[in-house]
Amino acid sequence: MEKIRVTFWNEFRHEKKNPVAMEYYPNGIHAFVKDFVESSCDDIEVTLTALDDENYGITDELLDNTDVLIWWAHTTHKELPDELAIKIRDRVMAGGMGFIALHSSHRSKPFGFIVGTNGNLSWGRNQREIMWNMMPSHPIAEGIPNHFIIEKEELYAEPFYVPQPDELVFSGWYEDGYIFRSGLCYYRGIGKIFYFQPGHETCKSFYNPYVQRIIINAIRWASPAKVGFKVTNDCPRLRTAPKDEFDAE
Amino acid sequence: MEKIRVTFWNEFRHEKKNPVAMEYYPNGIHAFVKDFVESSCDDIEVTLTALDDENYGITDELLDNTDVLIWWAHTTHKELPDELAIKIRDRVMAGGMGFIALHSSHRSKPFGFIVGTNGNLSWGRNQREIMWNMMPSHPIAEGIPNHFIIEKEELYAEPFYVPQPDELVFSGWYEDGYIFRSGLCYYRGIGKIFYFQPGHETCKSFYNPYVQRIIINAIRWASPAKVGFKVTNDCPRLRTAPKDEFDAE
Amino acid sequence: MEKIRVTFWNEFRHEKKNPVAMEYYPNGIHAFVKDFVESSCDDIEVTLTALDDENYGITDELLDNTDVLIWWAHTTHKELPDELAIKIRDRVMAGGMGFIALHSSHRSKPFGFIVGTNGNLSWGRNQREIMWNMMPSHPIAEGIPNHFIIEKEELYAEPFYVPQPDELVFSGWYEDGYIFRSGLCYYRGIGKIFYFQPGHETCKSFYNPYVQRIIINAIRWASPAKVGFKVTNDCPRLRTAPKDEFDAE
Amino acid sequence: MEKIRVTFWNEFRHEKKNPVAMEYYPNGIHAFVKDFVESSCDDIEVTLTALDDENYGITDELLDNTDVLIWWAHTTHKELPDELAIKIRDRVMAGGMGFIALHSSHRSKPFGFIVGTNGNLSWGRNQREIMWNMMPSHPIAEGIPNHFIIEKEELYAEPFYVPQPDELVFSGWYEDGYIFRSGLCYYRGIGKIFYFQPGHETCKSFYNPYVQRIIINAIRWASPAKVGFKVTNDCPRLRTAPKDEFDAE
Repeated sequence: MEKIRVTFWNEFRHEKKNPVAMEYYPNGIHAFVKDFVESSCDDIEVTLTALDDENYGITDELLDNTDVLIWWAHTTHKELPDELAIKIRDRVMAGGMGFIALHSSHRSKPFGFIVGTNGNLSWGRNQREIMWNMMPSHPIAEGIPNHFIIEKEELYAEPFYVPQPDELVFSGWYEDGYIFRSGLCYYRGIGKIFYFQPGHETCKSFYNPYVQRIIINAIRWASPAKVGFKVTNDCPRLRTAPKDEFDAE
Repeated sequence: MEKIRVTFWNEFRHEKKNPVAMEYYPNGIHAFVKDFVESSCDDIEVTLTALDDENYGITDELLDNTDVLIWWAHTTHKELPDELAIKIRDRVMAGGMGFIALHSSHRSKPFGFIVGTNGNLSWGRNQREIMWNMMPSHPIAEGIPNHFIIEKEELYAEPFYVPQPDELVFSGWYEDGYIFRSGLCYYRGIGKIFYFQPGHETCKSFYNPYVQRIIINAIRWASPAKVGFKVTNDCPRLRTAPKDEFDAE
Repeated sequence: MEKIRVTFWNEFRHEKKNPVAMEYYPNGIHAFVKDFVESSCDDIEVTLTALDDENYGITDELLDNTDVLIWWAHTTHKELPDELAIKIRDRVMAGGMGFIALHSSHRSKPFGFIVGTNGNLSWGRNQREIMWNMMPSHPIAEGIPNHFIIEKEELYAEPFYVPQPDELVFSGWYEDGYIFRSGLCYYRGIGKIFYFQPGHETCKSFYNPYVQRIIINAIRWASPAKVGFKVTNDCPRLRTAPKDEFDAE
Repeated sequence: MEKIRVTFWNEFRHEKKNPVAMEYYPNGIHAFVKDFVESSCDDIEVTLTALDDENYGITDELLDNTDVLIWWAHTTHKELPDELAIKIRDRVMAGGMGFIALHSSHRSKPFGFIVGTNGNLSWGRNQREIMWNMMPSHPIAEGIPNHFIIEKEELYAEPFYVPQPDELVFSGWYEDGYIFRSGLCYYRGIGKIFYFQPGHETCKSFYNPYVQRIIINAIRWASPAKVGFKVTNDCPRLRTAPKDEFDAE
């Protein structure tokens, strides 16, 4: 069986200095996600990489071996050079690589360049979130009930200045009176993108079995499609009229 | 292996009196589609039904055993009682039954009630159509090249007064100067709907291997999703606050 | 100045027997809306009609003189004949008449046939709703702050089985833990449709100045577009190639 | 009357060296557009700027005085620094500035960063294009017939790797057998974006009265909305629960 090759890129700084993050995710959020994904899925393997690794954790060789790229970043968005973010965008659009942006990655350069947004929203204290399943027939919602509860998650609030999603799968209610579109699907080029709100470094959302299921579902959904012709990252010139190998007659 | 249970509902009148239709589809368009689907797919079985069968070809028992309903109708849309079209709509929305509307079914009652349209368009003589693959990463486009050619198909022309599709997968060029959005996906309730333009009774489009592949892909795509809770065709009353079986803490 | 001609169709039964509804809306919800619209807008006139009027309150003459039809219905959806609902749909699609569905009209036949839905949702007790402005640049959101509060409104809860809206303008937070997409725009044919959640007969939401502003904004937004050619409710046959009155050369 | 302040940014190199472009647009495409817009509209004024002007033609002062920015670029996309393209994106998203991308600007940095795309498509020789009006009720289609003909326009062909548009207003048929989604609307933040295909430097499409009308309509459509609260280009922290100035009770 060919496995889906996931690369989890993590900012990986909070988990080295914030005591709560260190307690919840001692080896990093990326390692925690790798653990629950690989322990429950034979068909997925996860490679870890981080901002402070070589070339900001993004090499061509790594991308060449990535079906789905998961991104977690919070306070360091500006450290990533534009060129790398654009390279990731083009891998998604022309290469079909999936891209999953978790939590604070709403304001990361790759997410912003891929879907087209400045990523702005409002935010506040950790609190109770009820996650509503808006599109229960969506592949990413498979096995997810009508709703589930996350006892503590960082508040993210509307208006969230992202493009209207191609599919709105989850939406969150917060105890203080706020709401947020929490699970969003986008199509860009031949790639698929999923944004998912939970995952603050001082919350245990990644322990939640529904959050885990959603991430696993999203990996499968975002893995590259089988495309019936070669898509290249350029604008080819057409020198003839369209042709076909056969006719119906 | 559990098979996808397809029911093909056919108006089935042209193929009994129009000489060209009789030649191309001697046992009906529905039988022709059943043949190519079942001969190439072990996981799909097709049941045939027609307007002139008992209860307009639509019984509860039949619907109870249908995962995906394919519809082909042309000149008899008004003969189908509203109640049956609404019943089909509700099976799609609350039951997750897939619905594939072929060709002239753009103006059928089930398609109109499900997606919300009067189905209006313009039309003209049979002619050369070049079908363009607008969303090559879509499951329905799997295995389909950049474009393919149908030598003779009835002209359908924009403006096509359907809702903006959730996904525009195919779009057609016609030799006389017209264009048409030919392959459209909609989500309604927990059901999936695909409209596909080719398939006039005096054309051989169903012989085209790409048309066949698209129909097979669409059957798989439209088959019912696994939904994580029971969806009913009503408006349930909520008497408590949302609850959850477990917490992240 | 030519006025926008609004017709408000009201079920108009609760306000004749429910003491709370009688107190809040002594002449009917429709008359209450007419009052605040006409008293603040010189360019809009509102005609009232009701289910128990002649021909269910829907005559051709009335529709001929309607730019925007507002619909409020709750418990009587089935009394309206299908033909009238389909006639309304066709007026919207081919005639460009605007359609505004208020509150319980989510399950009315006209709304269901126009946008394509069974209208299902969950519901519960009257409670505090915070209405969030999801698309502050939308014409219907003009003058509306980031959010506003409705002290008592009937709970409507997701999943709401409507088509993914063309524009999601408002979304509601409810104190019991529920959320709801509350302000939804749809394009159908050459008509525009707005669904708006507030407006239960035992709540005073129509007294809320922001609710009033939204309804007025929606009337202006939904009024018929100037279309550059004649749209008819049929499928015209094309007998020639496309022509043009002039060339760029 | 307050005028809509349009700034037309032009690459402005072809019109200085290509004989055909020099003949058709002796003072530049931007000046040509300014002429027809200002001569027919009292409520619009157009400022011209170009790549070879100070700071690539983009200064803060200029942007401060721009309601709608029109962009025409072809072979120099890479010369514009990322920072300027991102500044433009943020003016659109948080400031509500309209953005109209003409022709080859599909691959410009501002368009790519704003909507989220690499802008890829296929292209070919100048030829006959028939432009179809897909959404006749759209404000940008006001006064535009069912279709119109452009005798010579550069071929742009699908698949066009842009996000599925929020509104597909125009779509083109080309004589060689190709099609292209030619008029696309996007909402990003509180800004509105329109992409329009015609406008090659060696074609006279800007002489076409319907093209002119579409550009004028698009300027009006894309001009900034009146937003009911202050939108800033950041992620504000929420320290209280939502409040309201008044209640319905």
